[in-house]
Amino acid sequence: MSRVLIIGAGGVGSVVAQKCAASPEVFSEIMLASRTKSKCDAIAALIKDRNIQTAQVDADSVPELVALFNEFKPELVINVALPYQDLTIMDACLETGVNYLDTANYEPKDEAKFEYSWQWAYQDKFKEKGLTAILGCGFDPGVTSIYTAYAAKHHFDEIHYLDIVDCNAGDHGKAFATNFNPEINIREVIQKGRYWENGQWVETEPHEIKQALNYPNIGPKNSYVIYHEELESLVKNFPTLKRARFWMTFGDEYLTHLRVIQNIGMASIEPIMYKGVEIVPLQFLKETLPKPEELADGYTGETSIGCRIKGIKDGKEKTYYVWNNCKHQDAFDDVSSQGVSYTTGVPAMLGAMMFLTGKWKKPGVYNVEEFNPDPFMELIGQYGLPWQEEINGNLEMKY
Amino acid sequence: MSRVLIIGAGGVGSVVAQKCAASPEVFSEIMLASRTKSKCDAIAALIKDRNIQTAQVDADSVPELVALFNEFKPELVINVALPYQDLTIMDACLETGVNYLDTANYEPKDEAKFEYSWQWAYQDKFKEKGLTAILGCGFDPGVTSIYTAYAAKHHFDEIHYLDIVDCNAGDHGKAFATNFNPEINIREVIQKGRYWENGQWVETEPHEIKQALNYPNIGPKNSYVIYHEELESLVKNFPTLKRARFWMTFGDEYLTHLRVIQNIGMASIEPIMYKGVEIVPLQFLKETLPKPEELADGYTGETSIGCRIKGIKDGKEKTYYVWNNCKHQDAFDDVSSQGVSYTTGVPAMLGAMMFLTGKWKKPGVYNVEEFNPDPFMELIGQYGLPWQEEINGNLEMKY
Repeated sequence: MSRVLIIGAGGVGSVVAQKCAASPEVFSEIMLASRTKSKCDAIAALIKDRNIQTAQVDADSVPELVALFNEFKPELVINVALPYQDLTIMDACLETGVNYLDTANYEPKDEAKFEYSWQWAYQDKFKEKGLTAILGCGFDPGVTSIYTAYAAKHHFDEIHYLDIVDCNAGDHGKAFATNFNPEINIREVIQKGRYWENGQWVETEPHEIKQALNYPNIGPKNSYVIYHEELESLVKNFPTLKRARFWMTFGDEYLTHLRVIQNIGMASIEPIMYKGVEIVPLQFLKETLPKPEELADGYTGETSIGCRIKGIKDGKEKTYYVWNNCKHQDAFDDVSSQGVSYTTGVPAMLGAMMFLTGKWKKPGVYNVEEFNPDPFMELIGQYGLPWQEEINGNLEMKY
Repeated sequence: MSRVLIIGAGGVGSVVAQKCAASPEVFSEIMLASRTKSKCDAIAALIKDRNIQTAQVDADSVPELVALFNEFKPELVINVALPYQDLTIMDACLETGVNYLDTANYEPKDEAKFEYSWQWAYQDKFKEKGLTAILGCGFDPGVTSIYTAYAAKHHFDEIHYLDIVDCNAGDHGKAFATNFNPEINIREVIQKGRYWENGQWVETEPHEIKQALNYPNIGPKNSYVIYHEELESLVKNFPTLKRARFWMTFGDEYLTHLRVIQNIGMASIEPIMYKGVEIVPLQFLKETLPKPEELADGYTGETSIGCRIKGIKDGKEKTYYVWNNCKHQDAFDDVSSQGVSYTTGVPAMLGAMMFLTGKWKKPGVYNVEEFNPDPFMELIGQYGLPWQEEINGNLEMKY
């Protein structure tokens, strides 16, 4: 009997709930909770053949979380709420003896700062309580980190260059929309670029480094070096890396929209007093943009996310490219979701399964690449995200 | 002794207050009132050599307006508040026996509808009370209508084609900003185009008709046919017009920003419930954009607004172009304001002077072209907006 509590009823929460529900042999009891219970109920209604429980909870409030955890008594919490809420949920886990998994690192609400320091500081506390916390188990971070661990384990003696390449060649038919929470997305994308090289971080202007990269089954797409959180843990866990970068594709129209959103002040996270309430422009913008979970129906095209790695095997240079392509339509057919929610939600479910089946259980706070990648890589294809690999191909990267 | 009450303490209100204060022989007592008294006080502090009174008033509230009018007892109200407030101010004028002048026609808050019907409906009421209401006495509407009346009176037997051309070739150094209230500006600019031809209105898609027009001292600028409110009264008052259009210049970047603002939902005037209050996205956007009155310092370049008219004089075809060019820096040197506020505020002051000196006094509700243009045209140059004319030049228009 494994009881799992999912917190967050957005696009990813919906995928996680449905995918967990489809594996009753592992997830015997499921509860879905969020600030708005009606959103949980709508997701529960999608699951025809099983009943899952739903609940209202304010994930900013440790006492509310503690009360819910004590009532439902989950073995594991899957946190797919907002990144602002990672710490309150971790605190509640510690207080009630519940294991923890998330898909995005903690961010303070009032500054766009992406780092694991706050969560890594929980290492000793989780260890002492004998609880496992699995950080960053979506696609990126998540599968990209597991791909890297898998490559390091099976394909290289030393990995030297890592380029994570993230392409969304989908078309949702909207003039502008973000594929996940617009607030989190825009905060992430408009920050300065940063990558790891020769033992230190190199900062760039936003979108300064641009290259057209070829993606399998898609072709060339303009790709930009941005900072992405898994770089921080990967360079720590794979100290042979001479360089680690993260590339994301953006269309010209997307970048124009981002530029204007900043120019008109709507990307600001400084609160403004308006009609007697504090309003953060970027948070308000979320209300006027299309909801990511509403992009699913009719979303065509596919995503392609993978790792391009160069290193040494048996004294020789070797390249390795491992990736997954995911069609938005396939995601919709499986769980009425778009591909970006799907590629995040499926790994979260599988990470939870890894924990509950004892394969990824060790007291403390860990990023996913610190666990054995093999059982995850073995199963992820059958849950909807098959991977492909190419050895000694042209990675298109300058070294 | 002439007592004038100015309502509205934005960029235009500041210009009107300063220009009225500079003519004490006509404006012997001045009060400036707005929702935020501190803004009135800041403007009053700009006027070194005279004291003007200030007051707080909610111009949406007829009882508040009536109380203020009864206390200050103005002869004339100059309304440079929001166009939403025209009717409440006119109601208060009728109740207290005060004459009225404004610079923009009434608009309902909840739909972007630009027409004089609501204000023209006050015709009999003002007539019965022996009160004058002067509508649209800024630059456009305002000076453009007076230019047309002047041309019709002195240069033509019949005017057939009118093209009002409005160019702002200024550079305020901001990525995006509007030159007057952004809410009013954006509502106006994103609507469908409309012009008068052969006795009926022709509708176009927004910015569908585009032509590079040459502006004096500026050169060619992309100009777009948009609907502008003075067209409605001009085609009524000059029934010989076969076609009447309004052109405005927009830079590509400005149009890109407008397109994105619409795409992301921030041009919407549908209220959203957010944090327990009703928020209209376009009104909130006003909070994040630069304030028009803050664009003044360092604003370079100039505006050029005029009328290009073709018609018949003594049985022969004739063309006539009359225009004003206004440098933003000159406006700043005169009243610490940018050119767009200046070109609106100076004509409002002069229209008020026309009324108070008995030249434009007739009971009822009138657009400015229904008064004698000559005394206005004689004086407008010395107050800062000199005009130039060209007879039988190339108007660049297709006929």
